Parts: sequence; C-alpha cells; structure tokens
Amino acid sequence: MTQIDFADQTLCPIARAENVAGDIWTVLVLRELFASNHRFDEIQVMTGATPQMIAGRLKKLEADGLVERRPYSKRPPRFDYHLTEKGEEFWPVLMALRKWGEKWCRLPGEQPSLTYTHTICGQPAGFGPLCDHCGKLLRPDELTREFSPAAVAEREARRTATKASRARKKRA
Amino acid sequence: MTQIDFADQTLCPIARAENVAGDIWTVLVLRELFASNHRFDEIQVMTGATPQMIAGRLKKLEADGLVERRPYSKRPPRFDYHLTEKGEEFWPVLMALRKWGEKWCRLPGEQPSLTYTHTICGQPAGFGPLCDHCGKLLRPDELTREFSPAAVAEREARRTATKASRARKKRA
Repeated sequence: MTQIDFADQTLCPIARAENVAGDIWTVLVLRELFASNHRFDEIQVMTGATPQMIAGRLKKLEADGLVERRPYSKRPPRFDYHLTEKGEEFWPVLMALRKWGEKWCRLPGEQPSLTYTHTICGQPAGFGPLCDHCGKLLRPDELTREFSPAAVAEREARRTATKASRARKKRA
Repeated sequence: MTQIDFADQTLCPIARAENVAGDIWTVLVLRELFASNHRFDEIQVMTGATPQMIAGRLKKLEADGLVERRPYSKRPPRFDYHLTEKGEEFWPVLMALRKWGEKWCRLPGEQPSLTYTHTICGQPAGFGPLCDHCGKLLRPDELTREFSPAAVAEREARRTATKASRARKKRA
C-alpha cells in the first residue's frame, strides 16, 4: 500500500503519518539521522537492524520525501543520507516518544540516556516540549546533546560487536 | 521479543517507546481510546483493522500497562477498554503525529480532519504544542474537539460498510 493509496482511504493525519513512519526501524533510522549519523554502515550498527532492513527503510523514507541521498565521494561513488525539511519536522514526534519512554520505560537505577542543554538559557532543557529552566518551546537547533556514560558505552559496544562479527565473517 | 527483553538491549527511550507502540494499528487503537471510543467493535470499525489485529493490539497494550479492561455488563459479561495514566501520557506523541500529518500528508483542497478549541481561552487551538491563540501549552483535558464534515462522513461510511459486510456474512 503506498502513501497516496492510504491518504485516499482516510483523512486522519495520525494514520497518514503512521503510514510513513509507523514502524520501529523507520523511527530508529530517523533518530540516527537527527543524531548526525549520515552513513549507511553507522546507521545500521547503531540501530542493530540488518542491512536489508535499513536499506528498505531508507528507500521508503527517500520515496516519501523525508530523506535525501547525497554523494560524498565520486570515485568510488558513495552516498550518505540527510533529512529534508519534511524529515526535520518529524523531530517533535521523536521528542514526545523520548519523554514518554524516559518516564514509563526507564528501569530502576538508570539515568536518562541523553541530556539536552538549551543554548538559549544555558541550562538543562529536560524532556520538553518546554524548557525546564526558561519555559520556552524547545527547538532542535537550540539544543546541545550529551549521551550518558551508559549510553556512550552502549553505542561503543554496538560498534565493537559489529566489527567482531564482520571479522568473523571475513575469516569464515 | 518482550518489552523487558528490549529494555535490556538498549537504553534509548525512543526505541523502548516504539517497542510498546511502534506500529500503526497500536497507534490507531490509542487514537480511538483518546476519542472516547471504548468498545471493541467500534474500535475495530473505526481503525479498519480485522478483529484479530485489534484483539492482539489491545492485549499487548493491556500487558504493557497502557490500557485496562473494565466490566460494563455482568450478564452477559462484557468489557470495554480505557487508558491508564501511562496510556493517557502517550497523548503528546499522537498530537505530534497529527501536526506532522496535517502539514505533510494533507491532500490539496482538504480541511484538517479535526479542530480543537482551547477551553482556557475559548479560541481554536491549532496543532500544538502551544495554543495558536493564547500561547499556553495544550493539555488534553482543556480541549474540545470537532471533526470536519468530511471526517464525520468518513467515520459514518466505515460504520455503514461494516454493517453491510456483517449482514452479508450473516446471509451467506
């Protein structure tokens, strides 16, 4: 079912948005692009999906106009992935998921995986949509981010595990 | 993969939230519950999913603590479905999806499918998170909703189509 077919079936904007980005792997690809992670390999490693899954999601996101492929090397020809304006504007959905996930899915003893500082007031921003400190609406270009030590370790472990798995495959 | 298994695999609150509600049918079930649509049959009709799909989503939402089943009739025993606090707090995710969908998926000539009035200031609220008129953060209990005529017609058509299909099955 294509996006337009679905838009023909319902006027509901929630259903239409979900038809574009209503699966966990699509959302995790978007998360990585928002984290300035633009290369296929690195996106795959950080989401933990298979290359086939990531290729499919990126292709659909490109077809739906949220992502564009840009060449970053001519010889050999290589591309990376960037959010379009339509993609950038999906950010509040991810922020709302983050807030809910930090409140309702965090395990005892865990710290939030990411801390935003609001560059407008220089203070911790909290989980939004308004800044915990100054009360202004948070915007993605007015935030700096810092992963918790545990989140940094998780991301490093994904990188290491992928390298090890690729080395095993090479030897086999 | 259960929610806890997944929470063990990643600290990311977005991934964890998506593991709970990262599929279109789950989100549409939540949409109906937010629209005060509490009965299984009516939820099924309005989402357009099969009874099996809705039963599965409601069961998972109940297991994950977003939805609770309440008896509304003793003889015969009948239950309907209500959001818990954990479910109610998913509302900003749906609002963010709505805003994105209305901006990026609306077809030429269409009106927004739903209009909110902000009871605090008595004016149209817009798409949030702040009220278009008074600038306050929108809260679900401070909004009244009105479907557009086209959205009312769509919902009525779903009801009629389901009745016709059930009548056909009864005759067959």
